[in-house]
Amino acid sequence: MAPFVHAEPVRFSDIDHAGIVYYPRFFHYFHLAFEELWRARVGPRAYVELLDRDRVGFPVVRATCEFVAPLRFGDTAEIEVSVIKLGGKSITFRYRVFRAADAAQPRAASATGEVVCAVVDLARFVAMPVPERVVALLSDLVEPPHSE
Amino acid sequence: MAPFVHAEPVRFSDIDHAGIVYYPRFFHYFHLAFEELWRARVGPRAYVELLDRDRVGFPVVRATCEFVAPLRFGDTAEIEVSVIKLGGKSITFRYRVFRAADAAQPRAASATGEVVCAVVDLARFVAMPVPERVVALLSDLVEPPHSE
Amino acid sequence: MAPFVHAEPVRFSDIDHAGIVYYPRFFHYFHLAFEELWRARVGPRAYVELLDRDRVGFPVVRATCEFVAPLRFGDTAEIEVSVIKLGGKSITFRYRVFRAADAAQPRAASATGEVVCAVVDLARFVAMPVPERVVALLSDLVEPPHSE
Amino acid sequence: MAPFVHAEPVRFSDIDHAGIVYYPRFFHYFHLAFEELWRARVGPRAYVELLDRDRVGFPVVRATCEFVAPLRFGDTAEIEVSVIKLGGKSITFRYRVFRAADAAQPRAASATGEVVCAVVDLARFVAMPVPERVVALLSDLVEPPHSE
Repeated sequence: MAPFVHAEPVRFSDIDHAGIVYYPRFFHYFHLAFEELWRARVGPRAYVELLDRDRVGFPVVRATCEFVAPLRFGDTAEIEVSVIKLGGKSITFRYRVFRAADAAQPRAASATGEVVCAVVDLARFVAMPVPERVVALLSDLVEPPHSE
Repeated sequence: MAPFVHAEPVRFSDIDHAGIVYYPRFFHYFHLAFEELWRARVGPRAYVELLDRDRVGFPVVRATCEFVAPLRFGDTAEIEVSVIKLGGKSITFRYRVFRAADAAQPRAASATGEVVCAVVDLARFVAMPVPERVVALLSDLVEPPHSE
Repeated sequence: MAPFVHAEPVRFSDIDHAGIVYYPRFFHYFHLAFEELWRARVGPRAYVELLDRDRVGFPVVRATCEFVAPLRFGDTAEIEVSVIKLGGKSITFRYRVFRAADAAQPRAASATGEVVCAVVDLARFVAMPVPERVVALLSDLVEPPHSE
Repeated sequence: MAPFVHAEPVRFSDIDHAGIVYYPRFFHYFHLAFEELWRARVGPRAYVELLDRDRVGFPVVRATCEFVAPLRFGDTAEIEVSVIKLGGKSITFRYRVFRAADAAQPRAASATGEVVCAVVDLARFVAMPVPERVVALLSDLVEPPHSE
């Protein structure tokens, strides 16, 4: 299993008064990587069509993040997406954020998070099974059991 | 004419890598003051009902801001709202942002902007006259001609 | 033990494409309540002086949130702050977010989170004991053991 | 003269309650394109080193934007950067934002803005001439006189 990876430069405005990336932005980075997964594998309108045309949504039920080392302006965030659990009526994603290697510094772990999404029929606001095409999109990202 | 004033503390996350409020946030401050004008004068659901129930929208046609002095974390932004032009099918707002006085510093000008909004029937996406109740909400905020 | 409460209107820009508050914003709401705790109890420059003058920082080590019901534009978020653990070299905060009661709806739970902060001497980047005045600020917010 | 172009997908969180990109985000898009200009032409740490090592800053003095057509989630913003005035102690940038062409829609203008930056010696907080290497970076982006 190789994770999907999205590289996102830390932006001038991601920084807070302490001079590091504002911690809620890491959850935003998670979401950017999720959006890019759809763009890269299906197309730029794939995710919006799932939501607006097919009326399938992924509301977040639980999100958690452990912070290891801060990111700063000038760094690039590398966000790895994998899937811990894919089945029934929810999906659990794992996101690992790294500071990318550059001329000055080696690659280094920055944060690790988990996000549990429900799968919802937006027309009726009820839970629904994970659609087949979402399973197809994500199946190679499922981590083997007991991996850490 | 006395402007409407909204005080908003500069937030930890409003700061950019240069240690001052990220300049696009000033347009967000303008919008916060606009939202608070509705909340304070009509009620917490006044603006959302205008949009969602009555289907009247105010898309921004032109926005401009002159920046005089930066704001920093610990400062409070005082945002004054007045109206330069109220009539026909558009409204022109003026926003003046000040750093609030505190124990350490006197009140000082930070930025001044103008925002031109169209008035739009959202059901048909066509321009419409400013509704009577919007005129009533804003009429005491209209600046006399030639004021600066 | 009564928690500290900060009320923050959901902003026009807090909404995402799904029409509800973007989930990473909840962690931002947590931070707003934390900032307001300092403002309300000590003063508008209390937190910035702790950081910049006294060089004491609170980097987040772990953050988690369970989402119960979404918030929408027009709602007001009521954010309750309490302390689960205050001691040694870290502080664990609990944040409970509610949709405020209004004419149309009763108060309702929206989300619950926990944020673990280290306490750090920013001049030397090493962990340090929780300063006395921070203990004093927070001690009435400490939840009794076994509370849920 | 060919402008520098940066393509940025509209993000799930760029959307406001009206279902379109929140207008202050356009000024953020301008800044993203400015950051990418440095990254693409010099390197990922070029802009941060100018600020932090060389202590040269570009505070915004005046920003303006005309909005032609909204952007929505699923669209990609193409942001063109050119220079209207490069000389003395300030730089005036022009930013043109387009909705990128895709299978469903042709390319279309969305917004046009101008941003005037001062050039400042951050160590002494005084205006300074545009550094030579900044002139070199930007000189091919200068629009011929009278262009619109």
